[in-house]
Amino acid sequence: MAVYTEVADEELAAFVNRFGIGKLLAAKGIAEGVENSNYFIHTSEGFFILTLYEKRVSEADLPFFLGLMEHLSGKGLVCPRPVRDRQGEALGRLAGRPAAIVTFLDGMSVKRPSVAHCRALGGALARLHKGGSDFAGTRKNALSVQGWRPLFEAAAPRADTVRQGLAQQIEQALTALEREWPKDLPHGNIHADLFPDNVFFIGDEVSGVIDFYFACTDALSYDLAVCLNAWCFEPDGSFNLTKGQALLSGYRRLRALTSEEVEALPLLARGAALRFLLTRLVDWLNVPPGALVRPKDPLEYLRKLRFHARVAKSAEYGLPA
Amino acid sequence: MAVYTEVADEELAAFVNRFGIGKLLAAKGIAEGVENSNYFIHTSEGFFILTLYEKRVSEADLPFFLGLMEHLSGKGLVCPRPVRDRQGEALGRLAGRPAAIVTFLDGMSVKRPSVAHCRALGGALARLHKGGSDFAGTRKNALSVQGWRPLFEAAAPRADTVRQGLAQQIEQALTALEREWPKDLPHGNIHADLFPDNVFFIGDEVSGVIDFYFACTDALSYDLAVCLNAWCFEPDGSFNLTKGQALLSGYRRLRALTSEEVEALPLLARGAALRFLLTRLVDWLNVPPGALVRPKDPLEYLRKLRFHARVAKSAEYGLPA
Repeated sequence: MAVYTEVADEELAAFVNRFGIGKLLAAKGIAEGVENSNYFIHTSEGFFILTLYEKRVSEADLPFFLGLMEHLSGKGLVCPRPVRDRQGEALGRLAGRPAAIVTFLDGMSVKRPSVAHCRALGGALARLHKGGSDFAGTRKNALSVQGWRPLFEAAAPRADTVRQGLAQQIEQALTALEREWPKDLPHGNIHADLFPDNVFFIGDEVSGVIDFYFACTDALSYDLAVCLNAWCFEPDGSFNLTKGQALLSGYRRLRALTSEEVEALPLLARGAALRFLLTRLVDWLNVPPGALVRPKDPLEYLRKLRFHARVAKSAEYGLPA
Repeated sequence: MAVYTEVADEELAAFVNRFGIGKLLAAKGIAEGVENSNYFIHTSEGFFILTLYEKRVSEADLPFFLGLMEHLSGKGLVCPRPVRDRQGEALGRLAGRPAAIVTFLDGMSVKRPSVAHCRALGGALARLHKGGSDFAGTRKNALSVQGWRPLFEAAAPRADTVRQGLAQQIEQALTALEREWPKDLPHGNIHADLFPDNVFFIGDEVSGVIDFYFACTDALSYDLAVCLNAWCFEPDGSFNLTKGQALLSGYRRLRALTSEEVEALPLLARGAALRFLLTRLVDWLNVPPGALVRPKDPLEYLRKLRFHARVAKSAEYGLPA
C-alpha cells in the first residue's frame, strides 16, 4: 500500500494534458503496489492508471517494460496499454520521477485461486509467451541463477535468526541449482512475477495481467515454474495437483511444451522457489524501522523448495506421464 | 493515506451485491482519508466509494452523517449520496466494521484555493446550510466550546515543549472564549470541517463536498468561521482579504447573515482557530511510534488565533462595513 510521491494537482493536470486523453476529472492515490506510486485517473475520455516509478525500478529498464506491455496488448493479452503523449513518448517525468499513464483494467485479483482460475491463468501465460515472441526488446533476468548467490551472501550471516539451519539448506540448494541449471530451453519474454496479485479476473476469466516490472528474457518454462509455486499450493503448504493440472493444461492448449521443458520442470520449480525464498529473506532481514508493510514469510518458499526437491518427474505437477 | 482494514474480495463482492448496484468489476483501496478505510468501486452500473468506519468515528453517529448526506444530495448540494441496500439500509457491516457505499464524485481538491474557489465555496456552504435546515436529525458539536477545555487539559502539561508559553496563551484565549461564546445565533446542521481537502472542484465550480464525519448541529456562522481560517490565509500566515470577501459574498448571495452573526464573526473565528489549534496540538503530542503520517502544525492555528484577536470588526474579513 503506497503513494510514495505526492503530486500537486496542477502539475498532475499539466502532465495528463500532454497525453491527449481529455480533461482531468479526478485523481486518487491507490493503496496498492509496493514498488511504485499509483494514481487512479478519470478524464473526460476514460479511466487510466498513472504510475510514478520509485527508486527500486531502474529507469533504463522502463522502455523495455512499457514497450512489452504495448506489444502484448496488441497481441490479444489483456494488459495495461501505455498511452503515448503527443510527441509519441510513453515515458515522461512527473514530480522528479519517471512516470507513465496506462489504460485502467477492470477485474479483481483473487486471494484463493480456484481450479478454474488456474486454468485461465495458464491460457493467459501462454498468450503472453506467444505474443511476446516477436517483441524486439530484450532484458536479462537479474534474478535468475547468477543473481541468487549475491542475494544469499547478503542474507547468509543472519539467515539462521529466521530459522536454525536455514543458511546451510539454502547453500546446498543453491550449489545444486548452479550446477544443474538448464541453459538451452526455449527462451522469450516472460513476466517472471505472475503472482495472484498481478492477475485480475472477472468471474473465471482473466481480465488483466499487470505489473511487468520484473519482465525479462528467459526460459519460457521458468514462468510456468513461478506460477506453479504461486498458484497451486494451498495455505497449509500442500500442493494441489488438480490446480497444477489445470494451469499446465490451460497453458498447453495454446503452447506445447518441448520434452526438455517437461523434463526440466522440477528443477525450474526449485529455482523459482529459491528465487522467492531469497528475495523474501533479504526483505525480511531488512525491514525499515517503522515500516507499515509486513514483509512476506520467506519460510513459505523454503517449504515449497523442499516439496520440489522430492518431485521425481513432471507428472507430479499434473503433466501427462 | 490509509487502508486500515483489508477486505477479502469474496466478502467485498457479497457486500456490494446487497446494494443492487450491479456486478462488482473492480475495487481499489484509496490512499486518502486519515479516519477511515476507503475503496474505489466500479460496478456494471457505475462508480462508488465504499467506506469502512474505523474506531475514531462513533458508530452511533453514522445514521446522522449518512442521513444528512442523503438529505443534502436531494437538495442540490453535490455531496456523496449513500446507497441503500435492498432492505432500505444505508449502513451495513463489512470485515467487522460499520460500512457504507456512496456515489463517486469527480473533481479534485485544491492545495492553494484561488479567489474564485473561495467564492464558489461560499455558495456551496450556503446551499449546505439551507438544504440542511429541514433535516430532522441533530448531533451535538462535541468539539465546540465545552469540548475545548478537556482537550486543553490533555495537552497542557506538554504544550510548552511545542512552543514556550503556549499553554498560557491557550489558557487565556480559552477562558475568554468560554466567557464570551455566543449562544443564540441561528443554528442548523453544519459541516464543521470544511477544509480544502474536503471540497472537489472541476475548474472553478464545486463538484463535491465530502467527509461529513464532523457534521453537527451548531451555529451556522461557525462554519463560515472555520472556512475563513481554512481557505483565506496565505502560506506566509497573512489573511487574504479578497478571498475573505469572495467567500462571504458567495455565501451571502444565497443566505443573508443576521446582524448578530456579522457581529459575532471575529469571536467565532477565534473559536474555530482554537478548536483546530487544540486538536492539532493533541495529535502532535501523541504521534504513535513509527507513524508515517506527519501531524499538521498546530502553530499555524496559533498564528491565526492571534490574527483574529486583533480583528476589531467583521469588515476586516471582507463584509460590507
